[in-house]
Amino acid sequence: MASYTAPLRDMRFVLYELLEGDRLTGLPGYEDFTRDVIDPVLEEAGKICAEVLHPLNRSGDEEGCTLENGVVRTPAGFKTAYDLFRDGGWTALACDPAYGGQGLPAMVNILVIEMICSANLSFGMYPGLSQGAYEAVHGHGAQALKDRYLPRLVDGTWAGTMCLTEPHCGTDLGLLRTKAVPQEDGSYRVTGTKIFISAGDHDLTENIVHLVLARLPDAPKGIKGISLFLVPKVIPREDGGLGPRNGVTCASIEHKMGIKASSTCVLTFEDATGWLVGTPHKGMRAMFTMMNAARMAVGVQGLGVAEAAYQGAAAYARERLQGRALSGAKRPDLPADPLTVHADVRRMLLTQRASVEGCRALAAWVAWHQDLEMRHPDPRARQEAGDFVALMTPIVKALLSDLGFEGASLGVQVLGGHGYIREHGMEQYVRDARITQIYEGANGVQALDLVGRKLPANAGRSLRRFFHPVSAYIEASMDNDDLAPFVMPLAKAFTRLQQATAQVARAGMANPDEAGAAASDYLRLFGLTALAFLWTRMAETALAKADDDPDGFYAAKVATARFFMDRMLPQSGALFSAVMAGGASMMDFDEAAF
Amino acid sequence: MASYTAPLRDMRFVLYELLEGDRLTGLPGYEDFTRDVIDPVLEEAGKICAEVLHPLNRSGDEEGCTLENGVVRTPAGFKTAYDLFRDGGWTALACDPAYGGQGLPAMVNILVIEMICSANLSFGMYPGLSQGAYEAVHGHGAQALKDRYLPRLVDGTWAGTMCLTEPHCGTDLGLLRTKAVPQEDGSYRVTGTKIFISAGDHDLTENIVHLVLARLPDAPKGIKGISLFLVPKVIPREDGGLGPRNGVTCASIEHKMGIKASSTCVLTFEDATGWLVGTPHKGMRAMFTMMNAARMAVGVQGLGVAEAAYQGAAAYARERLQGRALSGAKRPDLPADPLTVHADVRRMLLTQRASVEGCRALAAWVAWHQDLEMRHPDPRARQEAGDFVALMTPIVKALLSDLGFEGASLGVQVLGGHGYIREHGMEQYVRDARITQIYEGANGVQALDLVGRKLPANAGRSLRRFFHPVSAYIEASMDNDDLAPFVMPLAKAFTRLQQATAQVARAGMANPDEAGAAASDYLRLFGLTALAFLWTRMAETALAKADDDPDGFYAAKVATARFFMDRMLPQSGALFSAVMAGGASMMDFDEAAF
Repeated sequence: MASYTAPLRDMRFVLYELLEGDRLTGLPGYEDFTRDVIDPVLEEAGKICAEVLHPLNRSGDEEGCTLENGVVRTPAGFKTAYDLFRDGGWTALACDPAYGGQGLPAMVNILVIEMICSANLSFGMYPGLSQGAYEAVHGHGAQALKDRYLPRLVDGTWAGTMCLTEPHCGTDLGLLRTKAVPQEDGSYRVTGTKIFISAGDHDLTENIVHLVLARLPDAPKGIKGISLFLVPKVIPREDGGLGPRNGVTCASIEHKMGIKASSTCVLTFEDATGWLVGTPHKGMRAMFTMMNAARMAVGVQGLGVAEAAYQGAAAYARERLQGRALSGAKRPDLPADPLTVHADVRRMLLTQRASVEGCRALAAWVAWHQDLEMRHPDPRARQEAGDFVALMTPIVKALLSDLGFEGASLGVQVLGGHGYIREHGMEQYVRDARITQIYEGANGVQALDLVGRKLPANAGRSLRRFFHPVSAYIEASMDNDDLAPFVMPLAKAFTRLQQATAQVARAGMANPDEAGAAASDYLRLFGLTALAFLWTRMAETALAKADDDPDGFYAAKVATARFFMDRMLPQSGALFSAVMAGGASMMDFDEAAF
Repeated sequence: MASYTAPLRDMRFVLYELLEGDRLTGLPGYEDFTRDVIDPVLEEAGKICAEVLHPLNRSGDEEGCTLENGVVRTPAGFKTAYDLFRDGGWTALACDPAYGGQGLPAMVNILVIEMICSANLSFGMYPGLSQGAYEAVHGHGAQALKDRYLPRLVDGTWAGTMCLTEPHCGTDLGLLRTKAVPQEDGSYRVTGTKIFISAGDHDLTENIVHLVLARLPDAPKGIKGISLFLVPKVIPREDGGLGPRNGVTCASIEHKMGIKASSTCVLTFEDATGWLVGTPHKGMRAMFTMMNAARMAVGVQGLGVAEAAYQGAAAYARERLQGRALSGAKRPDLPADPLTVHADVRRMLLTQRASVEGCRALAAWVAWHQDLEMRHPDPRARQEAGDFVALMTPIVKALLSDLGFEGASLGVQVLGGHGYIREHGMEQYVRDARITQIYEGANGVQALDLVGRKLPANAGRSLRRFFHPVSAYIEASMDNDDLAPFVMPLAKAFTRLQQATAQVARAGMANPDEAGAAASDYLRLFGLTALAFLWTRMAETALAKADDDPDGFYAAKVATARFFMDRMLPQSGALFSAVMAGGASMMDFDEAAF
């Protein structure tokens, strides 16, 4: 089975050499997060991921979750691992110190999330969903709800879920039917069926806090009549202890392609007692806060799986002897050369590597802006950072999950037939990664969010938060000869992105289907351009340190940057052509002919 | 669960309208294969696939194969289905009438293979491997071997396998260790371990004929010391009945990502009795005959799965109501519009469709040349057709399996969360399709075969068999205004392919790693160009019939061709750039840094 080692060297490069991790301490509330504090957190996270979570990844996939007599059980070892995880304070990592959290900056937390997802994506779903519930209550709940629920979500004795989807509606939540009827004591009775509820029921915690979208009796139709409710599995007593079971049961669990150790439940709410979170009929707004953080996290899930797949493929390719280098035997002392001598194997490994390292930098770059948005003393800086985060969130979600799936699949290919066999663990990465392109808004929906909401928002204000710094960087770097092999292709891709943006805006204004037809290719073009910007900056950073490179880290970074420019960025040209071709060939097709 | 209907209308279009199915009867031995004969074969094949094989696809995946007390069992229903399949004469379809076969032309047989793979890829493995064994014995066996084994392989009472891979060698067969020791009676004792043996053991037939690569005691080292042996599971008696069990046992079966109803065995040969097939030490040559046919079939496996995935996705998209068209509600009478109104859903469906229909045309086009190669009375025409087949085989294998996997994955995406749930059957297509990129030579090996063997072969003679007709067609069509939207992008892609070919030849001559670095992207560029040629010809054919199009078949064909040109063919530009960038960024990367 493939092993996993947290890529701490690269994470520190991203944090402190590429980005501005050292400036975190300048943000109010982050004063304590010096390198001396952050590095041990990353190291300890790497340790629990490699030693506790990853060894359960394969066995969890084989065993899956079970539902018997109304009780959902996670695979062997998950409860013990969760207890260690919780006792280590990992559930509290990114939470508000006012409720027992450790207040870790988002830029650091996103790296911890990556490690958890590399080690065991299914396991990560449980604390991940709890974090979503925490954020909804923290952001929108009344103080009494916060006081009652947040400390338990933070210390991990209780878990959480997000209950959105119903059998007849996933993407289109306007159709949802679950009802909430107000009671005299200020609570509500919630009735309805929710499907695809991740971590919907399990045996890791004594209680589960469901955040449920439902309609009040007087709700307007559609998306503007949805409210958010907190519905605990077990109703807490006044003294904080556990009271009676609530009217929510797990009707069944889904049998899925992957993330089999994550329970995916059909939950039946029957007159379940709940409490309103936020304002009546404004549930979607509260849900979106939560969903934006979750979308970042799902992108990073794809990244995490791709990193693990890269490690598995690289380890195999270094050791497996098969064939000889086309240019002559490299290891005549052995019966055959290792796979790494073959150009096509290198192509696959470098594609995985360039994806993973680029996406890590992108996620951390956006997370740094989350920190600025939350913590910067200047409201204008907060707004600018917030604009950037809003713009980039759908890109991170879709690009990282698409590249994550592609990277996982390349990992299988490097192993050949052995990659297809379950015991090697590589095919699981493909199955696990596949969900990240779907949930938290399918990637096509992310693309529509980008072209339909984020581009036009505030007359393009968000867009400028990406375009201005990239444009300025290109201009400033144009005369740097060492950087030309990177800046030139970046500039070409960026010009294409600018033209495609104008085209999407213009054509979409006249006919919204044109924006829809361009959306997915446009998002990928945008994402590749963002990666090109970061790869250029990474190359610049690494080139500056080329003279002090005992372990070859910087040389590998520059070589990977070249590979990205030579062999991956050309995709931007194809995406540009596809966007510019317009949507007629899609929209004219007779529906009856499908 | 997704259903399957054989795409007979499109198959007839490819056979008789696009290609020269009506000319089959002009080839010696094919005189009887008029439309009146062929159409019922296709219809009956479609029927058994839809009614017998497809209903076992999901259940076979869930149950898988089992090994108990040395006996391998296929999932419930497989034996009954196989008996029906055999009794219907389907195992004899493409075989030599001299041994009881029906001698169906390859161009028709490839369509039948597609249907079987759409309906139940795992099931198709059993007769598929038998066909491989049949071809090896038919092409290289002594007459006595043929007389004894072929009638049983043809009538399907016995099955076959191809035993190549060993634990330490897959792609690099030069490393193989299985030994064959000659006996006084002219037989051999075969000893060794073979892994990944598809259909290696099962309960469908009373005997299994293993074609085994092994070394004779005096064999030269490496690939030139390999011989091919026929090793039956049960040794036939002189009278043709079954004698004693031979020394071959199934040590274990693999647990795989997909094709779970196909048994994949570790076979142990211990002094098993075998007979030489062909010449000593020339086993690889015999194996390659078989492998070329198998490679075509594996490509078509990918196509078949992609067709089934397209059908499942299209059916879902037509019925699932979710959201409203961006340009305003299309079905205000319903609570929401069907998914087919959304441009991005159309993008996915049309990508699937354009892939599938293009690949079907490509496979049939190559298969037509197989027929010409086998049957044409003029030796020069046979050679030219053979050159074309040799050139295109690695492209069909790699392109169709890659697009097959991508199409299957798009099918999941169209269904969203429901696609990820096992009961819908869509995720199985992804898992099943994934193997087609790996076995019968991983796709990277196909790419090396193309650039390393097929391009330089006979001073580029094979290459001209593609380049000349495409070039002539473009020239002849340049003034056809109706065809301009198709010919122009085809010409552009073709120019790129020509330039890339020159570059690969030139750079590869100087440094073979350059050819290796370009290979995969070059193969895909070649494949896309071939699809562009066929899509242009399909558009031309359909445009000519636009006035008599009651069911909209030709209109849909033209629209799909436009989609291919607008939104898929631009990839050729990116692939061209990647090829032209050269391999330095791959080969310079320090191996230790992986």
